[in-house]
Amino acid sequence: MSNTSNKSEIAKDGVSLRYEQGLAKLTEIDGQAGHKVIDSLAGICPDLARYVIEYPFGDIYQREGLDLKTRELITVAALTALGNCQPQLNVHIHGALNVGCTREEIVEAILQMSVYAGFPAALNGMFVAKEVFAEVTTN
Amino acid sequence: MSNTSNKSEIAKDGVSLRYEQGLAKLTEIDGQAGHKVIDSLAGICPDLARYVIEYPFGDIYQREGLDLKTRELITVAALTALGNCQPQLNVHIHGALNVGCTREEIVEAILQMSVYAGFPAALNGMFVAKEVFAEVTTN
Amino acid sequence: MSNTSNKSEIAKDGVSLRYEQGLAKLTEIDGQAGHKVIDSLAGICPDLARYVIEYPFGDIYQREGLDLKTRELITVAALTALGNCQPQLNVHIHGALNVGCTREEIVEAILQMSVYAGFPAALNGMFVAKEVFAEVTTN
Amino acid sequence: MSNTSNKSEIAKDGVSLRYEQGLAKLTEIDGQAGHKVIDSLAGICPDLARYVIEYPFGDIYQREGLDLKTRELITVAALTALGNCQPQLNVHIHGALNVGCTREEIVEAILQMSVYAGFPAALNGMFVAKEVFAEVTTN
Amino acid sequence: MSNTSNKSEIAKDGVSLRYEQGLAKLTEIDGQAGHKVIDSLAGICPDLARYVIEYPFGDIYQREGLDLKTRELITVAALTALGNCQPQLNVHIHGALNVGCTREEIVEAILQMSVYAGFPAALNGMFVAKEVFAEVTTN
Amino acid sequence: MSNTSNKSEIAKDGVSLRYEQGLAKLTEIDGQAGHKVIDSLAGICPDLARYVIEYPFGDIYQREGLDLKTRELITVAALTALGNCQPQLNVHIHGALNVGCTREEIVEAILQMSVYAGFPAALNGMFVAKEVFAEVTTN
Repeated sequence: MSNTSNKSEIAKDGVSLRYEQGLAKLTEIDGQAGHKVIDSLAGICPDLARYVIEYPFGDIYQREGLDLKTRELITVAALTALGNCQPQLNVHIHGALNVGCTREEIVEAILQMSVYAGFPAALNGMFVAKEVFAEVTTN
Repeated sequence: MSNTSNKSEIAKDGVSLRYEQGLAKLTEIDGQAGHKVIDSLAGICPDLARYVIEYPFGDIYQREGLDLKTRELITVAALTALGNCQPQLNVHIHGALNVGCTREEIVEAILQMSVYAGFPAALNGMFVAKEVFAEVTTN
Repeated sequence: MSNTSNKSEIAKDGVSLRYEQGLAKLTEIDGQAGHKVIDSLAGICPDLARYVIEYPFGDIYQREGLDLKTRELITVAALTALGNCQPQLNVHIHGALNVGCTREEIVEAILQMSVYAGFPAALNGMFVAKEVFAEVTTN
Repeated sequence: MSNTSNKSEIAKDGVSLRYEQGLAKLTEIDGQAGHKVIDSLAGICPDLARYVIEYPFGDIYQREGLDLKTRELITVAALTALGNCQPQLNVHIHGALNVGCTREEIVEAILQMSVYAGFPAALNGMFVAKEVFAEVTTN
Repeated sequence: MSNTSNKSEIAKDGVSLRYEQGLAKLTEIDGQAGHKVIDSLAGICPDLARYVIEYPFGDIYQREGLDLKTRELITVAALTALGNCQPQLNVHIHGALNVGCTREEIVEAILQMSVYAGFPAALNGMFVAKEVFAEVTTN
Repeated sequence: MSNTSNKSEIAKDGVSLRYEQGLAKLTEIDGQAGHKVIDSLAGICPDLARYVIEYPFGDIYQREGLDLKTRELITVAALTALGNCQPQLNVHIHGALNVGCTREEIVEAILQMSVYAGFPAALNGMFVAKEVFAEVTTN
């Protein structure tokens, strides 16, 4: 879908096209880990779940200009640099693997953050990757 | 150069191979903007300049696993997310263009940060890109 | 508009209702300062401008649960705490005044950040407020 | 107590008025959760506990200009945006409920941070609120 | 003054002892740069100026346990790491020189932050030091 | 070792002098805690472990200009201010004790961060110190 299209059309079931496309993209990238996040918001703020599906996945991740692999590596790097989003970093390292990034590419993106955000940020990001790779190996 | 090689060998002039390779890589990616940073440190901390050449450029940017375009997009995204490294973001947007990233790719990487670091971070990163593209156009 | 409504309907001119309502809300809160930001993105990333109008102003600021005065004070406080969004803090201090916050309320919100983000963050936020109040006084 | 009063007077027992008023305010806002924090510092840095009582609670939270509900919502929003103060966010969500904020108001303040600090910050803040609401429900 | 003393006594002129001692300490460490900050708050929030004098300078910098040189180096390092408090970093580099730190010590503290906060933070802190040393040299 | 020496020489076993000196310095400062970090990286990114040994410990901590006690206090303060590096803060509080800092000095460095990074950062850093002191006491 091009970036300039108007996504106001209502899809089936009265759900917006943004929501529907977002849900499909969330499943494509984050699989089970992403749906867990959505479900965990049901009892506290279902609207946040809806916005997560609509904006990041319905608007941003649909865009052309960067392929999904690059988008996921960029997200993994940024979350590592920020240093306080470890649950999301876990989800996105899974996501990066799901869209075809290799473990080496993910490790390199995290390692590079030692330059821009310091060694603690890179170490802590690397430990999340270690966790994710172990989860994937045992499944 | 593979990631596992030992770069302790002394190149010509008594300068380490890390330094020499780093300087070459800095020139390849950041051209003039990078050398300006190095020079600006001469009167205050030449060792910081040396470490910048040796670690980011002599060690990290030499590594295999990610190509230079991806490395630069990752850096642009991370610096946008961090929000307080605008001078370095300027240098690296120039760097991204130098290694072959398109303006569209750079804009997409910055825009994506609206999800992970918020709209202010994305806006401020976008204004730096606007500045850089104007500088490039007039030169 | 309630929080649970579906805003997929297309308003006149093919523009989504989210965009139209967002633009009206942006004008109501940020007046000229907000439109300046939108215009400044025209040559670099008009989609970011569109998303700013659609998500913060078309989705979030339309919501019930908190009145606009409280929403603006919360934003002023958060931007002060973050410490690296001074352009947006300037816009939102103007916004807080526009929706009826007093200067005293704005100053108190910024001052309180000395506890949670430290004295530098509070000082730097206070200097932005000083700037804004001077701009408002001369106009 | 007005903002301009001099609080140097010594109250009974040789304790300063700031300390005494601060302790009362801490109890009013944070109840048990706040006192737990104070007690946990006894063996490591009782002076930090004293300063917490004196500055945030003895000086800032005594001030006029913003009511306690607004002050607590501002703090909840700022701590959500900062993203690395989850223990304090837990205490202040309890505090916000104690001073009369509704769950809806708290959720809205956290949700709004998705705009200014990104979706990870809002998600992580929302999970703390979920925790607090569950604690409150079971008590 | 020991850390455990009660500083509630009212000094001459109805000003608290904390304020009086704080003002003396501010003058000792920050000289003119510190007083400029205080004056700049007069028209916007004189209470923030009072709290700056009372808490950081009246409580913290009076404490035993670390000498003033170490305290200033710690502050210079932390402000460099935070990356968004450059006005305060400028004031404190002046302060570090005032209390007897050498330029070498200040440069080393900033350089060390390349490890913990990344090279951008260290570079930007180093540029502030360069500025300060130039100001000091011309005066 | 002076700051200006060239450390390109290859030490015995084909390992660079930077690596060898770094390993010795890591052992001197961080003892067991530091080696645990290095080992934990073996299966995910041994190169990050190598860079940690080479840059922070082989380059920075070898430098003259600041003694090890001051360097460790600076690191403890910066990590406290950053607020999202608690594993590294734990390691460096151990390190500070190992190089001769007293508990009082460490507590004072953390407490001072209440001014520059806010009370939550200081509280969370203080809780890490409490943990470390308990670990040390039981061993």
